[in-house]
Amino acid sequence: MTPDEISAHYRLVRNGSVELSAPLSAEDCCVQSMPDASPVKWHLAHTTWFFETFILERWEPRFRPFHEAFRVLYNSYYNAVGDRHPRPQRGLLTQPTLAVVLAYRADVDRRMAMLLAEAEGGAELLALVALGLQHEQQHQELILTDLKHLFSLNPLAPAYGPPPPAAAAAAALDWRAFAGGVVAIGHAGRDFCFDNETPHHRVFLEPYELASRLVSNGEFLRFIEAGGYADPTHWLAEGWDWRLTNDRQHPLYWRHGHDWQEFTLGGLVPLDCQRPVVHVSYYEADAYARWAAARLPTEAEWENAAADLPVAGHFAGRRQYHPSAATTGGLQQLFGDAWEWTCSSYAPYPGFRPGAGAVGEYNGKFMVNQYVLRGGSCATPEGHLRATYRNFFPAAACWQFSSIRLARDADAVEPGA
Amino acid sequence: MTPDEISAHYRLVRNGSVELSAPLSAEDCCVQSMPDASPVKWHLAHTTWFFETFILERWEPRFRPFHEAFRVLYNSYYNAVGDRHPRPQRGLLTQPTLAVVLAYRADVDRRMAMLLAEAEGGAELLALVALGLQHEQQHQELILTDLKHLFSLNPLAPAYGPPPPAAAAAAALDWRAFAGGVVAIGHAGRDFCFDNETPHHRVFLEPYELASRLVSNGEFLRFIEAGGYADPTHWLAEGWDWRLTNDRQHPLYWRHGHDWQEFTLGGLVPLDCQRPVVHVSYYEADAYARWAAARLPTEAEWENAAADLPVAGHFAGRRQYHPSAATTGGLQQLFGDAWEWTCSSYAPYPGFRPGAGAVGEYNGKFMVNQYVLRGGSCATPEGHLRATYRNFFPAAACWQFSSIRLARDADAVEPGA
Amino acid sequence: MTPDEISAHYRLVRNGSVELSAPLSAEDCCVQSMPDASPVKWHLAHTTWFFETFILERWEPRFRPFHEAFRVLYNSYYNAVGDRHPRPQRGLLTQPTLAVVLAYRADVDRRMAMLLAEAEGGAELLALVALGLQHEQQHQELILTDLKHLFSLNPLAPAYGPPPPAAAAAAALDWRAFAGGVVAIGHAGRDFCFDNETPHHRVFLEPYELASRLVSNGEFLRFIEAGGYADPTHWLAEGWDWRLTNDRQHPLYWRHGHDWQEFTLGGLVPLDCQRPVVHVSYYEADAYARWAAARLPTEAEWENAAADLPVAGHFAGRRQYHPSAATTGGLQQLFGDAWEWTCSSYAPYPGFRPGAGAVGEYNGKFMVNQYVLRGGSCATPEGHLRATYRNFFPAAACWQFSSIRLARDADAVEPGA
Amino acid sequence: MTPDEISAHYRLVRNGSVELSAPLSAEDCCVQSMPDASPVKWHLAHTTWFFETFILERWEPRFRPFHEAFRVLYNSYYNAVGDRHPRPQRGLLTQPTLAVVLAYRADVDRRMAMLLAEAEGGAELLALVALGLQHEQQHQELILTDLKHLFSLNPLAPAYGPPPPAAAAAAALDWRAFAGGVVAIGHAGRDFCFDNETPHHRVFLEPYELASRLVSNGEFLRFIEAGGYADPTHWLAEGWDWRLTNDRQHPLYWRHGHDWQEFTLGGLVPLDCQRPVVHVSYYEADAYARWAAARLPTEAEWENAAADLPVAGHFAGRRQYHPSAATTGGLQQLFGDAWEWTCSSYAPYPGFRPGAGAVGEYNGKFMVNQYVLRGGSCATPEGHLRATYRNFFPAAACWQFSSIRLARDADAVEPGA
Repeated sequence: MTPDEISAHYRLVRNGSVELSAPLSAEDCCVQSMPDASPVKWHLAHTTWFFETFILERWEPRFRPFHEAFRVLYNSYYNAVGDRHPRPQRGLLTQPTLAVVLAYRADVDRRMAMLLAEAEGGAELLALVALGLQHEQQHQELILTDLKHLFSLNPLAPAYGPPPPAAAAAAALDWRAFAGGVVAIGHAGRDFCFDNETPHHRVFLEPYELASRLVSNGEFLRFIEAGGYADPTHWLAEGWDWRLTNDRQHPLYWRHGHDWQEFTLGGLVPLDCQRPVVHVSYYEADAYARWAAARLPTEAEWENAAADLPVAGHFAGRRQYHPSAATTGGLQQLFGDAWEWTCSSYAPYPGFRPGAGAVGEYNGKFMVNQYVLRGGSCATPEGHLRATYRNFFPAAACWQFSSIRLARDADAVEPGA
Repeated sequence: MTPDEISAHYRLVRNGSVELSAPLSAEDCCVQSMPDASPVKWHLAHTTWFFETFILERWEPRFRPFHEAFRVLYNSYYNAVGDRHPRPQRGLLTQPTLAVVLAYRADVDRRMAMLLAEAEGGAELLALVALGLQHEQQHQELILTDLKHLFSLNPLAPAYGPPPPAAAAAAALDWRAFAGGVVAIGHAGRDFCFDNETPHHRVFLEPYELASRLVSNGEFLRFIEAGGYADPTHWLAEGWDWRLTNDRQHPLYWRHGHDWQEFTLGGLVPLDCQRPVVHVSYYEADAYARWAAARLPTEAEWENAAADLPVAGHFAGRRQYHPSAATTGGLQQLFGDAWEWTCSSYAPYPGFRPGAGAVGEYNGKFMVNQYVLRGGSCATPEGHLRATYRNFFPAAACWQFSSIRLARDADAVEPGA
Repeated sequence: MTPDEISAHYRLVRNGSVELSAPLSAEDCCVQSMPDASPVKWHLAHTTWFFETFILERWEPRFRPFHEAFRVLYNSYYNAVGDRHPRPQRGLLTQPTLAVVLAYRADVDRRMAMLLAEAEGGAELLALVALGLQHEQQHQELILTDLKHLFSLNPLAPAYGPPPPAAAAAAALDWRAFAGGVVAIGHAGRDFCFDNETPHHRVFLEPYELASRLVSNGEFLRFIEAGGYADPTHWLAEGWDWRLTNDRQHPLYWRHGHDWQEFTLGGLVPLDCQRPVVHVSYYEADAYARWAAARLPTEAEWENAAADLPVAGHFAGRRQYHPSAATTGGLQQLFGDAWEWTCSSYAPYPGFRPGAGAVGEYNGKFMVNQYVLRGGSCATPEGHLRATYRNFFPAAACWQFSSIRLARDADAVEPGA
Repeated sequence: MTPDEISAHYRLVRNGSVELSAPLSAEDCCVQSMPDASPVKWHLAHTTWFFETFILERWEPRFRPFHEAFRVLYNSYYNAVGDRHPRPQRGLLTQPTLAVVLAYRADVDRRMAMLLAEAEGGAELLALVALGLQHEQQHQELILTDLKHLFSLNPLAPAYGPPPPAAAAAAALDWRAFAGGVVAIGHAGRDFCFDNETPHHRVFLEPYELASRLVSNGEFLRFIEAGGYADPTHWLAEGWDWRLTNDRQHPLYWRHGHDWQEFTLGGLVPLDCQRPVVHVSYYEADAYARWAAARLPTEAEWENAAADLPVAGHFAGRRQYHPSAATTGGLQQLFGDAWEWTCSSYAPYPGFRPGAGAVGEYNGKFMVNQYVLRGGSCATPEGHLRATYRNFFPAAACWQFSSIRLARDADAVEPGA
């Protein structure tokens, strides 16, 4: 990209965050619903802190911070930067107010524009700008999912936007076969990627099959009606404990009164059986797959299937923050709509080296007891995803747009299949 | 009071709550810092709910609630009213917004004004109006103490108002003797009181002495410097466990860096040794008293001493939300400045009968494992207190303006005294 | 007592503890079922530690401890003695074995016998011996109640002894009136008492009535059948929370299958409606009383009623470790059968002074957030009790033989009464 | 094996468990030190339950259980068998006594001997006998590690056996290179293996190197002295939280007074720098490796290196339950001495199918959030291990004999290496 293109891209991405918060009150932006989630206002500030701390602090002539306390206040988890405000207390920060945080954004954007215009930092600066914008896009998705969690706990069931439009009928679920063998995964080339996508490397795959689309609400409802939440034999032992401890009877945002309803960013709506099931934990995804005589794919199986496909689908650019039904045959919904749990534990690729400096804490230190999700969701910003992209969450996490794509061994032929 | 006087008093008290919130942003009013504390916005709504639910619902012709969900949303703890929003989740209610809550207040005030103008409810209605206004005043104090707790957890140390003015020198602490014998305590007569102040009844007191004023910060600092927080022999066993579990080294809002500071509603200020110590738990009050070769008074001892004194002192009317030093001799600070822990467990008086109906849940059901505090504080609304007034909190509670008045047996003569 | 009488009494009490453990295996004596309870073996060792630490260490010529580690290992809660093994880990001490602990007892008994024979310590030593034996008797009761708790958690429902014999029919419950006025309570005279029973002092009582006997299982069953555990209006707010959190539907050791059963030290037996209800918390006792239009007595009311009665009843001397029915009229069961919750918070009497030295920690430091029980139980050693005796437990404690005696204000005449 | 050989093997393994408990008192065998660990007595009973429930119940003519309650009491985690006694309450079972459990063992062994003599069950029965004996061996290792944990919490530091003999000097640590490529791992052939070792399958490995021996105490001490426990940059984020929450400063059984000591099954001994470090969590292993500019091996790397080596080393047959130093060069200690954490999350191999029936719950349902350990330890029974053997524990587990073998990418050449 040229300097002008970079500056334009910077403005575009940064404005996107503010636009996401535009429909919200200062109160909506301030509150934290659980330690895992952060207030919208915190996301707006922390993404700004990233540029101020990692770029301006280093390259800006006569650097002076917008506010001295922000270096600690908005540090998420970078030990190399120093102290940080405790994560579960992000929601206690009624001050700085939203107005102050927006002023912080404007100030840093102004200073960043000057810095980019001067273009003194060279490749290292530009790489950090790119990382900062990708980072901002990740937080844009979290703004939506964290807000959804907050609203879901409000008995008034507030809506962020209009309800999802009526969904078309989902196509029948069929299977697509892959030959396996020694295949290469991971990111190659010079385009941007996160460090956790590297290096490009070989893995060996047995022949396998992937389901043509995500599991639908209707299919998941049959699992429930068949007693899936009452029979431990479908579940991982830890998953069953999780289910009992949290008294889970259905996916996180389903509600059961006279009829099934689903809480969405458009408010509480009747459950639409055509759409993909979302907001399931790894435990639920795994239990469903076992009940369905299938399994979850490995991330290598997923990536091998997705590698040559166009990165197109229902992303956040549509401004419809709920997944759509897959209405056509073939391998659908690999990108967008909903993240797909893989059965791969989040681990470093062979030869993995974290990034240099503080940003080396970006990914590597989280590579334990999490599972990889692939493909992006309806809340993922347009252009943010790649086939090599690795998202990751603990097995109990449900508040992301996480769904299920079934896989099976190629030789596992079902009767009549 | 005449109907006009009642209406005027209603407006005065109700406006007082809104005035308290005036310096605050909607964000400041929304957040809950711990389960024991509530957001300012919740206080504004709940006090309004009290009038709508206990009065308008019964006496208003063609009653229609402001919002159907509010009956549950703003119910604090009245089982007789039905379901309630969980207390620890009061801070998740970013909606209804502060603007909506203020509209709720205006609407209920308008309807209450009409009802009071018609004066159809008779004595029972007027008694509930009086209770509702006293209830509102209790929440006005909580608005200040809950907000103080929230602000205390913010690294920016926000101020609600100006810092406290410089305090004068505290008078020397001396002792005032009381003869005891069979004395009467509890509320008599027809003026308003809470049910827990009744009935008027006799108790027997041994001769005793009360300290002339509250323990000062300077005196409490000597306890700290003498190792008071390091020696279990001063402490109740449960208090010592509390101290260890919470790693307490000093009162809740003290800070120790180069010098001692104290967080106040006027921000972080140098510790003023002349002022009364505040925000101590029962455990700390008891430990200090034992270290000082004294004890805490019983509530009967306190009331017997206070019964004939004018109810005057540093209350919230001064708009200085921090206690002052007692600068003169004699029995000082019984009213205002800070609540005084007594060693009396909160229990029903002999012959106690709770109020009738839902408001019977107001006091009686909390009469276990709490300790009585007496005398009001700098955050207590003017005119709210009486000598018979019984406040109560669990022994670990520190976030009220709670302080220490020493007592001792009359025959416990110290060397040189 | 003469020196010989003291020595004989010492042997009698000390042997009593070993006899209690005789029916048990070393395994039964080793395990701790909850932090509040201790293993039988620990009780056997700790009571011995009391004599070794407080008496032999001071008066024995050429004192050498039985084992150096025991001073810490078997210290219960005396900060003045120094470190102690953590209470919740008492059950981890598989070593020292039961055999070693019995040898410890024998050794200390031998050395104590020599010391008592020489009688060098004088009055202070003899007072500590008396305290040590009273202390041992308290632990004899705990041996039974802690063991009962452990056995209650074993699906095999082990029995410590034979099942309770068939109970006779309980007499009808009636009321006994007391005039009140200024009365004296607390211990007077020179016989042994614990420090918490002093000083003898005056209190004022309104006229009151006490129920003639304890509440029976049959009466408590009617409370359950009337929905008493489903209606919060009978309960203290904290009691209701306790009930919900612990999912209590009935007293601790009741079991509900086809019929009601009760776990006893004689194993699981059909619930006997004639016997007193036992193992209820303060919350349950209070809720029952409120449902029954009565209340719990204060400890002063109880003591005033009991002061002139002979201290006789169903104590542990009968070796029937379950309460009997009260079969005759008049004021029954004040002593023995079961402890009676009073509504009095455990607090120092006016002018209370703890004992001198380490034994000053015996009682005073526990005087917060506990409630007083009176009268002893079927597990209390014969001769241990007095009318002035104050037992105390937290409101949630159920594993003692705690029961309910109703009280009411004298003027509270029920319709038809 | 012939029927006679099977019967002899059965007796040999079963007697081994009883022999392990021989030095222990009934008390030592009864207590549970944490939910993760079980009492020795429970291990003795549960392993017997396995034969009674899975074999005798099915094949024994006129099956009558030893005790009706044992089916539930000693069920570990098999949902297909039905209810089970809660795991954290295994230590409350003072009854059945150790003597009864030993009688249970004798009875089941007698009945098993008759059944094996008749040999009616065929291959399925023999497969379950083999599984039951392997299962028993796993519990033999747990008997030692669970007992060690219990003893470690006893201030008397009891010893199970003699202290470890003086260790020889450890050989220098060097590196052994492997070419990688497509290699096969997993169990092939018809010998016994657990289902989790199958199927035999291909994986792709980059070139890699393994350290010649386990990390020694001396090397790990240098990590501590270099501040390894004080610097978060060495640690996984979750590991650092674990370290802080549990205040870990060194491996579980190290003690730091004047000098470093280590608690062993032979009691507390001076830390021997030549021996392998043991009882480290995955977090500590990972942190050490990162500090040492290396990493943990994958399980495929480990198995590829071990596949052709004789399964020989310091196993439990030596009756020295503490690892020895590796005194010679070459690839040492792959088998025995201590389990080696791999960086492989415990997951099903491609094409994995759990065993049929209840024993299908043996392994598969635990395949989440655990890490694979390889190679066996000084507490693993002789003959129990294979190169394909997969042990697994959560990342925080420390109470097994878990150690560290470093790995590195083949191209990661250190200066001077």
